[in-house]
Amino acid sequence: MTKKTQILVIGHNDDGCTPAHEKIAYEIGCEVAKSNCVLMTGGLGGVMKAAAKGSHDSNGLTVGIIPQDDPMHANEFCDIVIPSGMGLTRDFLTALSADGIIIVGGGSGTLSEICAAYMHKKPMVAIRNTGGAADKFIDGYVDHRKNVKIIGVDTAKDAVKKILELLHGN
Amino acid sequence: MTKKTQILVIGHNDDGCTPAHEKIAYEIGCEVAKSNCVLMTGGLGGVMKAAAKGSHDSNGLTVGIIPQDDPMHANEFCDIVIPSGMGLTRDFLTALSADGIIIVGGGSGTLSEICAAYMHKKPMVAIRNTGGAADKFIDGYVDHRKNVKIIGVDTAKDAVKKILELLHGN
Amino acid sequence: MTKKTQILVIGHNDDGCTPAHEKIAYEIGCEVAKSNCVLMTGGLGGVMKAAAKGSHDSNGLTVGIIPQDDPMHANEFCDIVIPSGMGLTRDFLTALSADGIIIVGGGSGTLSEICAAYMHKKPMVAIRNTGGAADKFIDGYVDHRKNVKIIGVDTAKDAVKKILELLHGN
Amino acid sequence: MTKKTQILVIGHNDDGCTPAHEKIAYEIGCEVAKSNCVLMTGGLGGVMKAAAKGSHDSNGLTVGIIPQDDPMHANEFCDIVIPSGMGLTRDFLTALSADGIIIVGGGSGTLSEICAAYMHKKPMVAIRNTGGAADKFIDGYVDHRKNVKIIGVDTAKDAVKKILELLHGN
Repeated sequence: MTKKTQILVIGHNDDGCTPAHEKIAYEIGCEVAKSNCVLMTGGLGGVMKAAAKGSHDSNGLTVGIIPQDDPMHANEFCDIVIPSGMGLTRDFLTALSADGIIIVGGGSGTLSEICAAYMHKKPMVAIRNTGGAADKFIDGYVDHRKNVKIIGVDTAKDAVKKILELLHGN
Repeated sequence: MTKKTQILVIGHNDDGCTPAHEKIAYEIGCEVAKSNCVLMTGGLGGVMKAAAKGSHDSNGLTVGIIPQDDPMHANEFCDIVIPSGMGLTRDFLTALSADGIIIVGGGSGTLSEICAAYMHKKPMVAIRNTGGAADKFIDGYVDHRKNVKIIGVDTAKDAVKKILELLHGN
Repeated sequence: MTKKTQILVIGHNDDGCTPAHEKIAYEIGCEVAKSNCVLMTGGLGGVMKAAAKGSHDSNGLTVGIIPQDDPMHANEFCDIVIPSGMGLTRDFLTALSADGIIIVGGGSGTLSEICAAYMHKKPMVAIRNTGGAADKFIDGYVDHRKNVKIIGVDTAKDAVKKILELLHGN
Repeated sequence: MTKKTQILVIGHNDDGCTPAHEKIAYEIGCEVAKSNCVLMTGGLGGVMKAAAKGSHDSNGLTVGIIPQDDPMHANEFCDIVIPSGMGLTRDFLTALSADGIIIVGGGSGTLSEICAAYMHKKPMVAIRNTGGAADKFIDGYVDHRKNVKIIGVDTAKDAVKKILELLHGN
């Protein structure tokens, strides 16, 4: 089996991202790389960029799926860029491209990715106390269907560990 | 100016839709038609179908934008069908196709449409006490950016009236 | 059955469109309207705009599916605008939204719509002697699969008549 | 600069692909890998699979962007899978994801990718004498705009060399 495990990190873009969000996102990027998984992100700023830098600094492989149709809009830590050319509709594409998802705060864009992932039953964990729109759903379900529970975790290490458990058992 | 005002009604699909949801959705469809607006929907069941029936019974014009690539999957009350062929990603397309949006309950799919609409700053109203994922955001904002407030209303008449006010002033 | 027959007219945008293309596109728009069909177009200039004007002048109903995310970019003859927000990828959406397609010249964009329509086995006719990329395939097939033949016709009236025959028999 | 050069190989799917197509596609995959570029493909059979196998056997990195929403539909030589969930509309996504494109025969799907790439002005080369819909445009332009010439080459080595020249000068 050639395909690597693809972990998507989502959360605040530049607007809304605090140093605390960046720190945990960076650590998650490092952990994803150390686990030999591919880091998937939306390829822009804030949490996306910090996670990509973490993966990059740990010799991981990072894919950025961006709204624009020109790869030059991606942050400088993406090894591979998918310039979707479909604007914010790319939020469904990032969600679909994930085997599992880690959430760090985030606003309406992050929430749309969570909804897309939820409808496609992707395993999701969220870092506790990072606020944002996602916070309303931590340790619970997005709707009455109870497709997948968004599991709260406290550290980057736990986030990646939990996703891998959910994907591959333990 | 040839373009008509396009009002999107979103909410529960068959799964999750109660007779109360259907009743209010039907009434909204009637009001949209009487206001000479085009009713936009996701073209499937539940709230989408009830609203389309209301518009149809009031001689309105209804467009259904569906996930499938074959128009036969739309409900029987759509005058025009856009078979998007892009699966649930069509939730962004329905949101983009709206001048204004009326929310009747709804789960994760509805919430993804709300997020898409919010990011594109579309006017939105929600029927109070219809529950669902949207309920967490009624009379408030989806995130810290405060793009657009989701305004709570109590009746179908008020919903259409409010949307038209938001779009055209009064 | 509520759904109307949806006929897509494709061809040169402003760039490449001659008065002869505009004349025949206008006539096609008139014929589509007189046949009680909905005219679908890509909502921009050239053949799209001329066809929309024809439909409009004959009291028909016109839908424009545009690349941009704001309806203001559509030409002024569209009753309903779908601002897809997905750039030129909307060429697949226009093709999917058609029950049948009429081709008037056209470059690479038109050709991508023809390919999309061909893969989805949509009936297609092309106006003879209007040149363009499509010309290479008139009265033939796009590839070895022979999904659908692109039937050459000489007039607007024949184009609509032939599409309706292909869709509904005669 | 972290981003790698991304070369897309397009052509016949299982249906239409001959052993000669597979052989040259395999060789192209090898050359792409040896040049330290990432191989992008549509992730399915025929030319896509043969190229992916070539890259895989040469220790390259391969991305498959597939129509389906589940990565299990990709061939077994993709390191990273983007399950687009948008059906054949993914042809625009593959084209957009390329820095440069190599064409090996191909039918209507390949032609739609060529049109998308042409509109976005991506450098393209085509292997001569591999037939298919693309053959009509080799050593020429898709339309009157003359955006980019599709340059004919004879070998896998020449194909990759030419793309790299077009991208980075020589």
